[in-house]
Amino acid sequence: VAQESDLIRRHFTGLGAARDDVLLGVGDDAAVLRAPDGCELVLTTDSLVEGVHFLPGSDPRSLGHRALAVNLSDCAAMGARPLWALLALTLPVADDDWLREFAAGFAALARAHEVALVGGNLTRGPLNIGVQLTGCVASGAAITRSGGRPGDWLCLTGTVGDAAAGRQPASGTLVNDDHRRFLRHRFEFPTPRVELGMALPGLASACIDISDGVRVDLERLAEASHCGLQIEVERLPLSAALRALHGENAWRLALSGGEDYELAIAVTETRLQPLLNRAAEKDVPCTPVGRLTAQSGAQWLRAGAVLEVSPGGFDHFAT
Amino acid sequence: VAQESDLIRRHFTGLGAARDDVLLGVGDDAAVLRAPDGCELVLTTDSLVEGVHFLPGSDPRSLGHRALAVNLSDCAAMGARPLWALLALTLPVADDDWLREFAAGFAALARAHEVALVGGNLTRGPLNIGVQLTGCVASGAAITRSGGRPGDWLCLTGTVGDAAAGRQPASGTLVNDDHRRFLRHRFEFPTPRVELGMALPGLASACIDISDGVRVDLERLAEASHCGLQIEVERLPLSAALRALHGENAWRLALSGGEDYELAIAVTETRLQPLLNRAAEKDVPCTPVGRLTAQSGAQWLRAGAVLEVSPGGFDHFAT
Repeated sequence: VAQESDLIRRHFTGLGAARDDVLLGVGDDAAVLRAPDGCELVLTTDSLVEGVHFLPGSDPRSLGHRALAVNLSDCAAMGARPLWALLALTLPVADDDWLREFAAGFAALARAHEVALVGGNLTRGPLNIGVQLTGCVASGAAITRSGGRPGDWLCLTGTVGDAAAGRQPASGTLVNDDHRRFLRHRFEFPTPRVELGMALPGLASACIDISDGVRVDLERLAEASHCGLQIEVERLPLSAALRALHGENAWRLALSGGEDYELAIAVTETRLQPLLNRAAEKDVPCTPVGRLTAQSGAQWLRAGAVLEVSPGGFDHFAT
Repeated sequence: VAQESDLIRRHFTGLGAARDDVLLGVGDDAAVLRAPDGCELVLTTDSLVEGVHFLPGSDPRSLGHRALAVNLSDCAAMGARPLWALLALTLPVADDDWLREFAAGFAALARAHEVALVGGNLTRGPLNIGVQLTGCVASGAAITRSGGRPGDWLCLTGTVGDAAAGRQPASGTLVNDDHRRFLRHRFEFPTPRVELGMALPGLASACIDISDGVRVDLERLAEASHCGLQIEVERLPLSAALRALHGENAWRLALSGGEDYELAIAVTETRLQPLLNRAAEKDVPCTPVGRLTAQSGAQWLRAGAVLEVSPGGFDHFAT
């Protein structure tokens, strides 16, 4: 017990950004924070579990990064500014080296987005990394999944499918190492779209982060918005690495893969160009891939034909 | 994946109290909340891990209760009013019956203290229950561990040692079943001192919740307050059940046992009686057990002699 509080103090005190609104951080029964005026709070929690989200022996620096990134991505999808994080870490052994690397990965991403770690909890047990993030958004300005309307464009940030490809263990084939490294990095160190997310209020109708795959998450947004959707699969933004290494399967990985932590943004016709301009200013690729429709149901088009979707993914074409 | 979001919707939507300040609850990328005016926020997180905090096969209703109770206790120790909870649940199998019971235990305690569950996350893996709680306290009024001063009385709420005794599996000896049930209940359904905690601002100098045991936690409070402490072990509030079943060992369980989730409160001489009055109004037993001292170090007195404390507990008397 005493050892656990020592470890927390040693590795988690003052981690991330220093913020004036943190009145009391790690080390008491709870943290004390000053909320910004005129804002609503945005709260989210997401966990990484060994054997589900990562393999045993994964780079702890990547795990520190990803555990925060998945929560930053949720916060960005609401149009909110991230403020404070809490960490609930369950570890099989108290390993100082592991904790140092984990904390370094977490801290680098936290500082990049001015997030302070304000509380932590360390328990022995099977590796489980829970992060909770609090953010703020101007009152009434939060973006939800449900604000989309028929005719809205659907846009994707970045490229999709890279994380699914990068997650697969390297095979022995002679392929371009730079491409392989790129995909691996996209899986291990995803880029949450925090800055663009904060620019969405006033621009976007709806937003969701792509954690479970383009197909599942776009259909969630459409359903929450009481719309259907029509997507042209050829428009999906794919990286050169994904195209080079996965050829004809690239779009399957993009649709079903998950863990990209890109944003899917619904935007009216008149706001499409302003959104694309804003994304360009922030150096974030942003690609229109289709539209929300008044007719319910999802149409995934490829080469002008509707893809047949089975529960397991996109298995074949419909005639 | 789809099944997980179904389970979350089915079991966790609208769980706990209905609150006007919850603008968007379970079901989007994050919750949206309206923070009360003129308050600071209090954030805490605590987890229950199978094999560490509970045995396999534990009553899920108790786990739902305890997972929230440990966080409510942290919040109470800060003098804060609890508002919103998030749940990060890792489960080996998606078991509807288990989830229903867990949710029932969580919800009953949440409603009793007007807490809303505003977000949830469900993952497959070894059983791990993470709860995060946000509360509020008037600006500048939060109670910390570090505000104690030499001469302050140290008081304990309720009775201590019951949870440690109740955690032990029942043996076959012929003992009073009511006593055994009482101790078991104290372990499985601890009573967080939420109402008294909210009354502490303006009364208490310092406070900590007793999660790791009276000895460890009182010494933490004293150390954070840059004081020593002197406690008379005979004053520790022990239940009739603990005395009846554990006789001479009752005080050892009380000192080292942990998981009582009672409050240890430091209070000046002049505020002692007002604190005791306030506790009596709220029907919470509150017992002075000793004082903070100017001289550093901890003195645990029994029958007028100083107990010798070894790292493993209280093993023998000093001469």
